[in-house]
Amino acid sequence: DFMNAIDEVRPAFGVSEDELATCLQGGIIHYNSYVDQILREGQLFVEQVKKSERTPLVSILLHGAPSAGKTALAAKIAIDSGYPFIKLVSPEAMVGMNEMSKVSYLSKVFMDAYKSTLSVVVLDNIERLIDYVPIGPRFSNTILQTIQVLLRKQPQKGRRLMILATTSSRSVLSQLDILNSFDGELGVTNVGNHDELAHILKELGSFDSREIQATTRELEMMTGTKKLSVGIKKIILGVETALQDEDKCGRFASVMSRAVREARIVYDD
Amino acid sequence: DFMNAIDEVRPAFGVSEDELATCLQGGIIHYNSYVDQILREGQLFVEQVKKSERTPLVSILLHGAPSAGKTALAAKIAIDSGYPFIKLVSPEAMVGMNEMSKVSYLSKVFMDAYKSTLSVVVLDNIERLIDYVPIGPRFSNTILQTIQVLLRKQPQKGRRLMILATTSSRSVLSQLDILNSFDGELGVTNVGNHDELAHILKELGSFDSREIQATTRELEMMTGTKKLSVGIKKIILGVETALQDEDKCGRFASVMSRAVREARIVYDD
Amino acid sequence: DFMNAIDEVRPAFGVSEDELATCLQGGIIHYNSYVDQILREGQLFVEQVKKSERTPLVSILLHGAPSAGKTALAAKIAIDSGYPFIKLVSPEAMVGMNEMSKVSYLSKVFMDAYKSTLSVVVLDNIERLIDYVPIGPRFSNTILQTIQVLLRKQPQKGRRLMILATTSSRSVLSQLDILNSFDGELGVTNVGNHDELAHILKELGSFDSREIQATTRELEMMTGTKKLSVGIKKIILGVETALQDEDKCGRFASVMSRAVREARIVYDD
Amino acid sequence: DFMNAIDEVRPAFGVSEDELATCLQGGIIHYNSYVDQILREGQLFVEQVKKSERTPLVSILLHGAPSAGKTALAAKIAIDSGYPFIKLVSPEAMVGMNEMSKVSYLSKVFMDAYKSTLSVVVLDNIERLIDYVPIGPRFSNTILQTIQVLLRKQPQKGRRLMILATTSSRSVLSQLDILNSFDGELGVTNVGNHDELAHILKELGSFDSREIQATTRELEMMTGTKKLSVGIKKIILGVETALQDEDKCGRFASVMSRAVREARIVYDD
Amino acid sequence: DFMNAIDEVRPAFGVSEDELATCLQGGIIHYNSYVDQILREGQLFVEQVKKSERTPLVSILLHGAPSAGKTALAAKIAIDSGYPFIKLVSPEAMVGMNEMSKVSYLSKVFMDAYKSTLSVVVLDNIERLIDYVPIGPRFSNTILQTIQVLLRKQPQKGRRLMILATTSSRSVLSQLDILNSFDGELGVTNVGNHDELAHILKELGSFDSREIQATTRELEMMTGTKKLSVGIKKIILGVETALQDEDKCGRFASVMSRAVREARIVYDD
Amino acid sequence: DFMNAIDEVRPAFGVSEDELATCLQGGIIHYNSYVDQILREGQLFVEQVKKSERTPLVSILLHGAPSAGKTALAAKIAIDSGYPFIKLVSPEAMVGMNEMSKVSYLSKVFMDAYKSTLSVVVLDNIERLIDYVPIGPRFSNTILQTIQVLLRKQPQKGRRLMILATTSSRSVLSQLDILNSFDGELGVTNVGNHDELAHILKELGSFDSREIQATTRELEMMTGTKKLSVGIKKIILGVETALQDEDKCGRFASVMSRAVREARIVYDD
Ligand SMILES: Nc1ncnc2c1ncn2[C@@H]1O[C@H](COP(=O)(O)OP(=O)(O)OP(=O)(O)O)[C@@H](O)[C@H]1O
Ligand SMILES: Nc1ncnc2c1ncn2[C@@H]1O[C@H](COP(=O)(O)OP(=O)(O)OP(=O)(O)O)[C@@H](O)[C@H]1O
Ligand SMILES: Nc1ncnc2c1ncn2[C@@H]1O[C@H](COP(=O)(O)OP(=O)(O)OP(=O)(O)O)[C@@H](O)[C@H]1O
Ligand SMILES: Nc1ncnc2c1ncn2[C@@H]1O[C@H](COP(=O)(O)OP(=O)(O)OP(=O)(O)O)[C@@H](O)[C@H]1O
Ligand SMILES: Nc1ncnc2c1ncn2[C@@H]1O[C@H](COP(=O)(O)OP(=O)(O)OP(=O)(O)O)[C@@H](O)[C@H]1O
Ligand SMILES: Nc1ncnc2c1ncn2[C@@H]1O[C@H](COP(=O)(O)OP(=O)(O)OP(=O)(O)O)[C@@H](O)[C@H]1O
Ligand SMILES: [Mg+2]
Ligand SMILES: [Mg+2]
Ligand SMILES: [Mg+2]
Ligand SMILES: [Mg+2]
Ligand SMILES: [Mg+2]
Ligand SMILES: [Mg+2]
Repeated sequence: DFMNAIDEVRPAFGVSEDELATCLQGGIIHYNSYVDQILREGQLFVEQVKKSERTPLVSILLHGAPSAGKTALAAKIAIDSGYPFIKLVSPEAMVGMNEMSKVSYLSKVFMDAYKSTLSVVVLDNIERLIDYVPIGPRFSNTILQTIQVLLRKQPQKGRRLMILATTSSRSVLSQLDILNSFDGELGVTNVGNHDELAHILKELGSFDSREIQATTRELEMMTGTKKLSVGIKKIILGVETALQDEDKCGRFASVMSRAVREARIVYDD
Repeated sequence: DFMNAIDEVRPAFGVSEDELATCLQGGIIHYNSYVDQILREGQLFVEQVKKSERTPLVSILLHGAPSAGKTALAAKIAIDSGYPFIKLVSPEAMVGMNEMSKVSYLSKVFMDAYKSTLSVVVLDNIERLIDYVPIGPRFSNTILQTIQVLLRKQPQKGRRLMILATTSSRSVLSQLDILNSFDGELGVTNVGNHDELAHILKELGSFDSREIQATTRELEMMTGTKKLSVGIKKIILGVETALQDEDKCGRFASVMSRAVREARIVYDD
Repeated sequence: DFMNAIDEVRPAFGVSEDELATCLQGGIIHYNSYVDQILREGQLFVEQVKKSERTPLVSILLHGAPSAGKTALAAKIAIDSGYPFIKLVSPEAMVGMNEMSKVSYLSKVFMDAYKSTLSVVVLDNIERLIDYVPIGPRFSNTILQTIQVLLRKQPQKGRRLMILATTSSRSVLSQLDILNSFDGELGVTNVGNHDELAHILKELGSFDSREIQATTRELEMMTGTKKLSVGIKKIILGVETALQDEDKCGRFASVMSRAVREARIVYDD
Repeated sequence: DFMNAIDEVRPAFGVSEDELATCLQGGIIHYNSYVDQILREGQLFVEQVKKSERTPLVSILLHGAPSAGKTALAAKIAIDSGYPFIKLVSPEAMVGMNEMSKVSYLSKVFMDAYKSTLSVVVLDNIERLIDYVPIGPRFSNTILQTIQVLLRKQPQKGRRLMILATTSSRSVLSQLDILNSFDGELGVTNVGNHDELAHILKELGSFDSREIQATTRELEMMTGTKKLSVGIKKIILGVETALQDEDKCGRFASVMSRAVREARIVYDD
Repeated sequence: DFMNAIDEVRPAFGVSEDELATCLQGGIIHYNSYVDQILREGQLFVEQVKKSERTPLVSILLHGAPSAGKTALAAKIAIDSGYPFIKLVSPEAMVGMNEMSKVSYLSKVFMDAYKSTLSVVVLDNIERLIDYVPIGPRFSNTILQTIQVLLRKQPQKGRRLMILATTSSRSVLSQLDILNSFDGELGVTNVGNHDELAHILKELGSFDSREIQATTRELEMMTGTKKLSVGIKKIILGVETALQDEDKCGRFASVMSRAVREARIVYDD
Repeated sequence: DFMNAIDEVRPAFGVSEDELATCLQGGIIHYNSYVDQILREGQLFVEQVKKSERTPLVSILLHGAPSAGKTALAAKIAIDSGYPFIKLVSPEAMVGMNEMSKVSYLSKVFMDAYKSTLSVVVLDNIERLIDYVPIGPRFSNTILQTIQVLLRKQPQKGRRLMILATTSSRSVLSQLDILNSFDGELGVTNVGNHDELAHILKELGSFDSREIQATTRELEMMTGTKKLSVGIKKIILGVETALQDEDKCGRFASVMSRAVREARIVYDD
């Protein structure tokens, strides 16, 4: 039954759009210009892979704070590429596998990709894929080396491959000396101020204009600033929790102010 | 016979209430307002999972000193949720398993949970689940990574899951960089003063009012304060030991004063 | 034949009195009041396990210097409990087993214990059970975690269990963060002065009153004090060695004075 | 299927020219005198192996910054040798193999080489072949030792072997004490100034003279210098990315100026 | 054939006198009073094991510099004991075994010993038995723990066992915290001065009186002292080397003076 | 086929002269008096093993800088011994074996040697045999321990064994505490000055007297001294490379001056 479980996670050839769709459950809200810029640059690389004769392989790293929206943006670029082969490699798909199975799984995905003329592979959450933990630090060097080589392995003649990887620990990847293996990087930023926050709340539709104003005003009083640095995923979660409370605005403000405080603690480190 | 032993610990589908009940042998004594607040916040998350469309997965960490009552409170929230699938994952259930069996066991529990529309999984004593020991420090990175990924793995469409985890080493989890994987935290506090202690002794029923007064007075003389910081589980144990002695009150006071002293030593570290 | 060897060490159900008896080869000499106090406190816990409804599991740690008599006292408390199931788990019984066999063996002992209504398990020499060595330090984390969980695993309803553990490295257990898993501790002290030594020599019967006087006088001259800090087991060994020599008293004094010196060196560390 | 995958990478006897050709996709542009010098020295060693009676085995290390063109130059020397047996050993060919398979694979390649009278083996990217990672540092000592011994193992009488290895971490090889095992070294340098850059752009053919002038002028304004230190591979990649943009020259200058900045950061370390 | 090799080293029941005899190839030369004293103390313990009711197990450690004669003295005590079961456990007998085989081998020897009423086991060169190496330091904890437990494991009722162990790294054993497991220690000293050296040369018979005088006089001139600190085994080796040279005395003096110098270097550390 | 590969390296009984001959491809040039002295001392030990009754086992370590000629000298002594059993154990013969196979291989060689009345075993390049690498440092303790015990294991009665080992890392062996296991040491020195160099060039025959003079004069101008410290193997290699160049003398001088510089850098460390 455990082996069956592994079988279940083996995807059909080239089809990973369902998985990518669940990464986009919250949609893409265009709450500032960086969001558009990342998507535009992503599209540029998509074109380069499709057209250039000299660079049939291009690998890009999306990095940013936890919950900043990295996975969703990578998924968006991949889906919008229109390539025939699209595949998401995520830690969730490898639960319960041992090191060697994970390596086989990774190799298999890329061998499949090399069979298509035009492919995109998303390597989500690299530090989790390699089982990284800061105490030690410990990680699977076997998986790391596999990824590092796959990032550089040229597809056969006539085949083209784009690799999109995400991480919330760029500095760890730097220490692991793997940044050199990427051809480009895209930085994903947190939601940065109350205007962007208001934009998001409006789009989500659970607060009306008055409530948005009330909430941001309360948040400003609590934090003493109109700035913040919170990932979009945390904002969406906070909205949902707030919806269970009678005092929707009050609870959302209090949840956000706690997130703001935690971000500050991290900055002080 | 050893493999049989493992079989014995495999629970029937979705039924873990017996195990949860034994975590509640001492009941829940409402000895201060924090106890109620934790249960209330727990219920709020229970509602969010049940109702929100955007957050079908919510994971909460209960942290506090050893014996503070973390497991009992997590069990209480889980039982009171009324969800059809309730499961306790505890180190005790995994005695004698090797690392890979533990990973399979964990995966199995979550795969079962994903089959129910509404599930709650309690991960009791995370540092024990990952075999953490401060010398080294050493721990099972394989189990840690599995837990970390399971805390974030979205159930299939239409399924909802709440995860309640407990730990008496929040700082260790912080060093392991796993706190980010939780959506929320609830702090469980020790019994803090003689009023709360008296409340508990009264509820337990082994001391009458006069004895309670005598005991707390003696304790105050021994420690020089009406404050203490002792877990409710230690208080219940102390009462039972005291019952075997002829000088019930004297022994209880002496057992408590030793617990107070030990707590101070820990604080001085 | 090696597997047979393992089979041989598997005890019959609930019977370990022979092994416990060999731990008591030197009997229990009541050479000071601490000896009686330890036995009395041990008996109190025996009663608590037998009678209390709320604490069906109690675990106690006996700690003290090497040779202080820890194993003998634990064996005495266990035998005197009168419980139907009595079992000694010692490193000697596990010679030649690998880590996994030791874990199975430990699990098996406790599963057997849970089948009896009233059981006592003695875990002798915990640092040896976990293969602890100060260089590194190294130890079997697998066995440590198993013991740590077994110390807290509640027996099924209606079953009661007392665990007596011994160690000569309490500070190591503290660093391993396992002390919290015990419900109580009993400190076993060395023989501390010439009066206690004389008491022991008299009980052992190999020296007459005059010889005892001669010996202690010579020892005082050698060490310059009537104090000492030597384990009872070393005293018994010294007596036996002395018996082979013509100058019985002289050799015993010289053996003891060396033990006193060594104890001092350790204290200076 | 995984074993099949390994089979697929096993090369036919002595034929590795296809793989070597893909290493030369960008051709060899003679953008400065060092390029010619390296090729000339390489040819000298080729002659020595072919003719000398006393040195049937010669091993050479090509070292230089990432993307400097090491692999291409090693491939060029190997192909131009005209030896009957030519083989490339690259990390990409070993993806998914475990340590022992890699050792077997390496041994097999050399055993094949020893069968030919005149052979050249290219060991591409030694630090990747040995799974080196700076955290720890960790690497496969088994593979390292195999390589170190193969670098010194004399072919049977009448057989001659040239080994060309590449690395972008010469200092790591020095710490691993493996430099002594090479008979000679060739340093590969980065593209160093705007003249060399202009030479390359002209050869690649995507920019006309005017555009080249415009681009280098813009780059000089951005970086404040006519010097740079960028690998030829990065320059080729930059050209291809620029071709997707409307403002070809502007984007190429901006991509290059970023590469110059990154090189400076590395130099400051 | 390798397994056969292991079989070959398995001794017949209780017979190890041949092996012990080869440890005594150089005989025992009574070159100073310590030699006699060690043998006398050894005999005392032999008696204790044979006669005492309370100490059926006694373990003694012989420690001293490399080549000091530890193994020969242990062998002598064992052979002279006259016990029916005598067994030498040496690293040489375990060449080519893996860790688990060594543990089985050790267990087997002791199980055999427990079957005899009176046994002596010699554990030669403990640091080599546990594969100790100072870099790390590294050693087999599995074998160490096995030895440590076997040193304390009481034989069944009516059986008696003496254990003689040797080491040239007492400080290592101290760091490994294994000294406590021995009941006694015997220090073996180097040859200390020219009188003892002359005594040995005379006994060995390769030098006549005049040659001995010439040699020691030359040595004194070379080293500037009549003292030395060289193991008896090195002296015997030096004599044999000298015998091949024409200038027997000159070469012996020069070999000895080098040994004296090396000893000084070690002392300066 | 891999197992076949291992089979191929297994030598026929007692015959290793071919392998030893390839170690002597460059012959032995008597370029200074040390060369003769080493060979003479080697012969003395050869005699001792053959004749002495008390020392049937003698082990000697040849140590010196890389390329100094250690292996050739050990091979020379072994071949000239005239013993019936001669065997070379080299890292090259063990390529592709795992740790356990290497241990078996080593054991096998010595078991074969013990069967001959008179044997010599050459352990070439000990630090490579034990897979030593300075980062860590890491090495195979299993192989190290096997070698250390084999260096001391007495052959059966009537059998005699000489062991010649080589190393270019005597300080590493010292840290591994293995020097004590050797009965003697022989230091191999580098070529030290232009006279010795001229001697060698003359013997090799590729330069005539005038060319030798021209070359050494040029070298002196380049290095500013008539001293050097270069291994003979590097000199032979330099000659062969120079022969490919038109300017034979110029290139040889430049190759040598680089070797001199590198030696200085090492000395400065
Ligand atoms: N502009 C946006 N960019 C990214 N995500 C967005 C945006 N607008 C809405 N979202 C939603 O926000 C969520 C972002 O979550 P996502 O998992 O991508 O974050 P993440 O950075 O990958 O988090 P983690 O660090 O946990 O991996 C998704 O549900 C996504 O649909
Ligand atoms: N208000 C309360 N909160 C928690 N536990 C309570 C409360 N009142 C009574 N109890 C009882 O106290 C005990 C608490 O023990 P519990 O095992 O939950 O502590 P814990 O913090 O999980 O301990 P540990 O650190 O050992 O895991 C239970 O028996 C529970 O029934
Ligand atoms: N009062 C006493 N307390 C303990 N042991 C006693 C006492 N009187 C006599 N003895 C005898 O002394 C010996 C104590 O040895 P024991 O093995 O219990 O010591 P230990 O502390 O467990 O030693 P170790 O540190 O080696 O485990 C036993 O033989 C026991 O019979
Ligand atoms: N003079 C040159 N030297 C080297 N490569 C050149 C030269 N001219 C053009 N090229 C092209 O530049 C590219 C160099 O890439 P190559 O893979 O050899 O770099 P590398 O140093 O091995 O990179 P890495 O550090 O990633 O291994 C090749 O495509 C090659 O064809
Ligand atoms: N008085 C003596 N004590 C010990 N050995 C002696 C004595 N007289 C002669 N010998 C001879 O000296 C040699 C001592 O060697 P032995 O192997 O016992 O030394 P060791 O200390 O065990 O060496 P190592 O440190 O290598 O284990 C033996 O051959 C022994 O026969
Ligand atoms: N006097 C000499 N001593 C040693 N080798 C000599 C001498 N004269 C000529 N040679 C030749 O020099 C070469 C020495 O190489 P050898 O492999 O023995 O060096 P090495 O010190 O073992 O090198 P490495 O450190 O790589 O193991 C051999 O080819 C040998 O035939
Ligand atoms: Mg993500
Ligand atoms: Mg708990
Ligand atoms: Mg004990
Ligand atoms: Mg390359
Ligand atoms: Mg010895
Ligand atoms: Mg050599």
